[in-house]
Amino acid sequence: MPLTEPMKPTPNSPPELAPLLVFGAHPDDIEFGCGGVVAGETRAGRAAHLVLCSRGEAATQGTPAERTAEAQQAAALLGATLEFIELDGDARLEVRSAHAIKLAGVIRRARPGIVLAPSLVDNQHPDHGRLGQLVRDATRLARYGGVAELREWPAHSIGQLFYYAVTLEAEPAGITPVLLDVSAPEILAAWTAAMEAHVSQNRGRNYVELQLTRARLHGMRAGVGHAIPLFPNDPLVLGSFAQAGRGARRF
Amino acid sequence: MPLTEPMKPTPNSPPELAPLLVFGAHPDDIEFGCGGVVAGETRAGRAAHLVLCSRGEAATQGTPAERTAEAQQAAALLGATLEFIELDGDARLEVRSAHAIKLAGVIRRARPGIVLAPSLVDNQHPDHGRLGQLVRDATRLARYGGVAELREWPAHSIGQLFYYAVTLEAEPAGITPVLLDVSAPEILAAWTAAMEAHVSQNRGRNYVELQLTRARLHGMRAGVGHAIPLFPNDPLVLGSFAQAGRGARRF
Amino acid sequence: MPLTEPMKPTPNSPPELAPLLVFGAHPDDIEFGCGGVVAGETRAGRAAHLVLCSRGEAATQGTPAERTAEAQQAAALLGATLEFIELDGDARLEVRSAHAIKLAGVIRRARPGIVLAPSLVDNQHPDHGRLGQLVRDATRLARYGGVAELREWPAHSIGQLFYYAVTLEAEPAGITPVLLDVSAPEILAAWTAAMEAHVSQNRGRNYVELQLTRARLHGMRAGVGHAIPLFPNDPLVLGSFAQAGRGARRF
Amino acid sequence: MPLTEPMKPTPNSPPELAPLLVFGAHPDDIEFGCGGVVAGETRAGRAAHLVLCSRGEAATQGTPAERTAEAQQAAALLGATLEFIELDGDARLEVRSAHAIKLAGVIRRARPGIVLAPSLVDNQHPDHGRLGQLVRDATRLARYGGVAELREWPAHSIGQLFYYAVTLEAEPAGITPVLLDVSAPEILAAWTAAMEAHVSQNRGRNYVELQLTRARLHGMRAGVGHAIPLFPNDPLVLGSFAQAGRGARRF
Amino acid sequence: MPLTEPMKPTPNSPPELAPLLVFGAHPDDIEFGCGGVVAGETRAGRAAHLVLCSRGEAATQGTPAERTAEAQQAAALLGATLEFIELDGDARLEVRSAHAIKLAGVIRRARPGIVLAPSLVDNQHPDHGRLGQLVRDATRLARYGGVAELREWPAHSIGQLFYYAVTLEAEPAGITPVLLDVSAPEILAAWTAAMEAHVSQNRGRNYVELQLTRARLHGMRAGVGHAIPLFPNDPLVLGSFAQAGRGARRF
Amino acid sequence: MPLTEPMKPTPNSPPELAPLLVFGAHPDDIEFGCGGVVAGETRAGRAAHLVLCSRGEAATQGTPAERTAEAQQAAALLGATLEFIELDGDARLEVRSAHAIKLAGVIRRARPGIVLAPSLVDNQHPDHGRLGQLVRDATRLARYGGVAELREWPAHSIGQLFYYAVTLEAEPAGITPVLLDVSAPEILAAWTAAMEAHVSQNRGRNYVELQLTRARLHGMRAGVGHAIPLFPNDPLVLGSFAQAGRGARRF
Repeated sequence: MPLTEPMKPTPNSPPELAPLLVFGAHPDDIEFGCGGVVAGETRAGRAAHLVLCSRGEAATQGTPAERTAEAQQAAALLGATLEFIELDGDARLEVRSAHAIKLAGVIRRARPGIVLAPSLVDNQHPDHGRLGQLVRDATRLARYGGVAELREWPAHSIGQLFYYAVTLEAEPAGITPVLLDVSAPEILAAWTAAMEAHVSQNRGRNYVELQLTRARLHGMRAGVGHAIPLFPNDPLVLGSFAQAGRGARRF
Repeated sequence: MPLTEPMKPTPNSPPELAPLLVFGAHPDDIEFGCGGVVAGETRAGRAAHLVLCSRGEAATQGTPAERTAEAQQAAALLGATLEFIELDGDARLEVRSAHAIKLAGVIRRARPGIVLAPSLVDNQHPDHGRLGQLVRDATRLARYGGVAELREWPAHSIGQLFYYAVTLEAEPAGITPVLLDVSAPEILAAWTAAMEAHVSQNRGRNYVELQLTRARLHGMRAGVGHAIPLFPNDPLVLGSFAQAGRGARRF
Repeated sequence: MPLTEPMKPTPNSPPELAPLLVFGAHPDDIEFGCGGVVAGETRAGRAAHLVLCSRGEAATQGTPAERTAEAQQAAALLGATLEFIELDGDARLEVRSAHAIKLAGVIRRARPGIVLAPSLVDNQHPDHGRLGQLVRDATRLARYGGVAELREWPAHSIGQLFYYAVTLEAEPAGITPVLLDVSAPEILAAWTAAMEAHVSQNRGRNYVELQLTRARLHGMRAGVGHAIPLFPNDPLVLGSFAQAGRGARRF
Repeated sequence: MPLTEPMKPTPNSPPELAPLLVFGAHPDDIEFGCGGVVAGETRAGRAAHLVLCSRGEAATQGTPAERTAEAQQAAALLGATLEFIELDGDARLEVRSAHAIKLAGVIRRARPGIVLAPSLVDNQHPDHGRLGQLVRDATRLARYGGVAELREWPAHSIGQLFYYAVTLEAEPAGITPVLLDVSAPEILAAWTAAMEAHVSQNRGRNYVELQLTRARLHGMRAGVGHAIPLFPNDPLVLGSFAQAGRGARRF
Repeated sequence: MPLTEPMKPTPNSPPELAPLLVFGAHPDDIEFGCGGVVAGETRAGRAAHLVLCSRGEAATQGTPAERTAEAQQAAALLGATLEFIELDGDARLEVRSAHAIKLAGVIRRARPGIVLAPSLVDNQHPDHGRLGQLVRDATRLARYGGVAELREWPAHSIGQLFYYAVTLEAEPAGITPVLLDVSAPEILAAWTAAMEAHVSQNRGRNYVELQLTRARLHGMRAGVGHAIPLFPNDPLVLGSFAQAGRGARRF
Repeated sequence: MPLTEPMKPTPNSPPELAPLLVFGAHPDDIEFGCGGVVAGETRAGRAAHLVLCSRGEAATQGTPAERTAEAQQAAALLGATLEFIELDGDARLEVRSAHAIKLAGVIRRARPGIVLAPSLVDNQHPDHGRLGQLVRDATRLARYGGVAELREWPAHSIGQLFYYAVTLEAEPAGITPVLLDVSAPEILAAWTAAMEAHVSQNRGRNYVELQLTRARLHGMRAGVGHAIPLFPNDPLVLGSFAQAGRGARRF
């Protein structure tokens, strides 16, 4: 199922679908960690905006210019818009309140319903967990009326924050995940293509296989082809069980 | 908002609403732990069936006959049907495979979508956690084709198992809850009435206040009037974020 | 039970009652999180000193001047003294060693027996957990003889550090709390009045109800009217069970 | 500091000191796990009663008759009374409701303030954790008015249940312990003598050294000579910090 | 890499290689959960003995006779011997001390160095976790000299107990696993063939794919082709880092 | 068993023994936390290099010059080389990416197989856990090709990172330790001598007794004289059980 053209979200998103906002520390983190989810949402007509906090300049492979181009191609394949912001640079991210305020400004501009960020597990690339902390804090700061730097945009409360895991090790124990079904052929193809767009990172590595294998394993749990686990920051509020989906327990 | 007449589920449940099946160790456990959820589902047109595994014969207050009558009245107020089954008796429940098989038989007969059971926290009335274990096991056994005692009914896979907590202490750490909104006046009135129907248990105790206080606290978290936490046994499987409700974080 | 006059601690505290020192990130955190405990201790004749690390300048409601006045009134109602110190400002607090050293200086001046600080749970206002970390570190630094900035005061070892939770979500799992009984009418009235003194924060919010509901729930667990949970940083050392109080398990 | 004579509790215990009741699965478990605590309480004038649920008949060393005699001598050295009850026998204990009811009967007879039981950690002698579960359940059943076998004694609510750990591995993570100071020479001598009274179990083993080493390590944490950790089943309820002891953090 | 002939362990195992003893609740549990590990050990010259506690008589697919034959073929493919013992039957296993004693007898006869058992996670087939508990207890009872039923064999202390996980969900959080490399073509082929020998269980299911996918994911973590996680019951004791292998962190 | 002369590693280390690299926040942390392990490895012919990140200038006892001399003598007694690096100074360490990069440079120079760092438990001297975080991050950064400051040395992947605990409280729950046997008289004597070399820290304190008591307790668990627990950052990868050592469970 080759996919060479970017996904096209439906021109007029239904008004009830507030945008999806996804933060990544490096080009490729979003695609590898939750690209299938982004593809699924844009295909369903929801706008998605990706925000990257470095150009991967500390990586072994790929120049910042190459990484930027790969990220742009991948975002297009997922049907999402893309933006780079400057924090401390790749492999240099620190948990500073100025960064959280900057990210809160992004949230106020984008006014998302759902926000995705890297999981808070520490034992991964140090930028990942730190960005997760900053985004969590930013979703709070975006609600507070008195932060001077944020006054140009109205305060905004998001609907929910979910964490994605870039690898199996980054899946947090102690949070019950929700599994997002990404089995539809068009979604799976878009996700695979977006991962493969990071050509510099896939040289001599098997990241794409890693992610598809992980999604296949979660998919088998869920009784579907492939699934991606997301980890809610707060309890879900439901009006009734009609919203509850079903439980994953096939084996 | 007094409520003196039982709730009336809509006569023809929509076919997509598989029944709700709720297990309790004693008369009043279901009402105190998750009665508002039952009321909400029956009001939304879903059939609900309650199964009690004792008549409270070890309690300080109330005879088995009184407890039975109270449970029947409470079930009617919630719009649910009620059944008693015999296991080991109040304060005597043990984790035996014969019990799990018996409960699996109930599941095969009722063919529920959602099952509710007491949480697995040990430090509460010992019957509660043990019944939770038995129900969890029963939901598996109901799927297996070779259990001799179960052969008269076809195998059945439920949609999801959630645990309810009879008290704050019984809310399990380590499982992210979902919060069910029970704020609608009719739901809250039906729940309160069903709890108050357990007259023998409320003499000189403040169980009703305990539960409404707990639900108010969870409601404030969720940004609604009152909410009841339920704890999923397995990850929820979602097709998209349109099903994800929103997160509870008001403070 | 209205309370309009500040509590008056007994003029000469018994010498065995070392002062209570309480840290808050914002005006109102102490009152909402553990104000009843402060009221109980001052009423029992123990001196209490509150230290606030911002004037709430990032909040949606209330100017810094208003917040300062509210905090002063609340402290007086609790029978405590109050001090503001400058760290990074509201919504800007970072975990810096210079801050911990500054807080250690406060500890050396106040020479408390018991210290209270916000809990270390991350998923709350980011200043809360960070202040908790800084206070924990400060209680250690206060003991070390070689920190240049601290040499003007003699080293001091506190008796115990407890964490308070500003909301239910901030109550840490994994630490067994102690429940402080705040049911005495005078204590409850002083606490309520101190919370209500934060007029700017209570406009259109129900923080006072939130806290009284939470304390009522913990009180019912403990078999008393209202109780506030505190979370010890280190095991309690007891000479015998005569000191052990009793356990909370009413339901 | 040799101790050859049993401790003598003061003849008339103060009425406010409700008895201490301690359960052990085998002769020597109580002495090795918390003998110093028992010695400290009897020395302070509190009555202590030990209940053993086997005579160690599955052990490699020592006949049941020898074990019985050793336990009697050890109890006398600790200043406690001793009773044997029959459950399933050594290495055969199961979690049965009939056992919990039998133990609840013991509690109703003894009417203790504090109850001690082996910790619930599973990875130790299987009888230990199971007895802990049974005692926890028994402390609840002792309160319930309707259990037929218990009707000859009035219902009884204990003050608090603590768990003791027979080894370091049996100390539960996730419960903040209280550390009981057992450093007084007379207490330490009585404890050591009571452990050494189990002559058959100390042949070729170093159990006494193991326990004294463990207590020394906890004592150093607590800033005293030796201390024994106990793990509360429920939060402690305190009227004020005057009861809070102090925290253990010497290093 | 097809494998049609059973693996042949070297005829004379080196004396330092004490046998491997593996317990399974049903035919196929061992093969699916840790078959590659068994194949690796027999190939390295260690004797392996498999013990099954039911013939799968509650399963949807396959008669007991078919299951028995499949298990015998699979054991032969792994180079292991096989034995069936009677406990309570499939889907009926209970935690009884008589079962633990029976398993301890098996351990005394086999005198293994390493023992493997299903993990203690509860949320899987109920027989799995219960067998894990029974085996853990049995490894203790095998050491005790006074258990009457065990007196015909000398007491035996095993070297180490590891748990295997039949599915991803059965991998316990809170235990750091060791990852066993099963990438060698002969090992992988033997494992795959042994799983496929359970023809009745693979009809219309994808268990073999599930396990190979899981092992591939763990293998990528470990920097090898495929790996199987095992969970130690107790800390490993090492003489020096020369034994420590290396850590798994490729991504 | 007095030891007055430094241990002499064998002159030509076997090529398969990559060096051991150990980080400490203060002079004496390494010796108290894992000195016996260092002594065991150098005695087995492995090179060991110690890196200290302060000269203990905030301590109550000992000048920086004295502390430096003590550390040099201790390193010699352990048979290790020693280096000081400058970060923020004693009691001032912060988690900064520049520090992690500096430590990564040390790793690239030393090219170790095994790295040891203080455990990540927060409730200890604040420098300890922060250094642990920095070392963990540094072991990742050492692998990345694009960090400008590191380009003078080739990238390096370590074999495994283990954490050591300076006190019992610093032993992390939730990681299964490995226990290193340090019972050989020469090792124990070298370790003791190295701890005693920190004369300024042992005045009026009992750190040496604390550590030997802790190691004796772990040793009794492991069935040896003394043992030191280390906590792996990542799962161990084993080729077969021949590498698995044995499990610690003596009691």
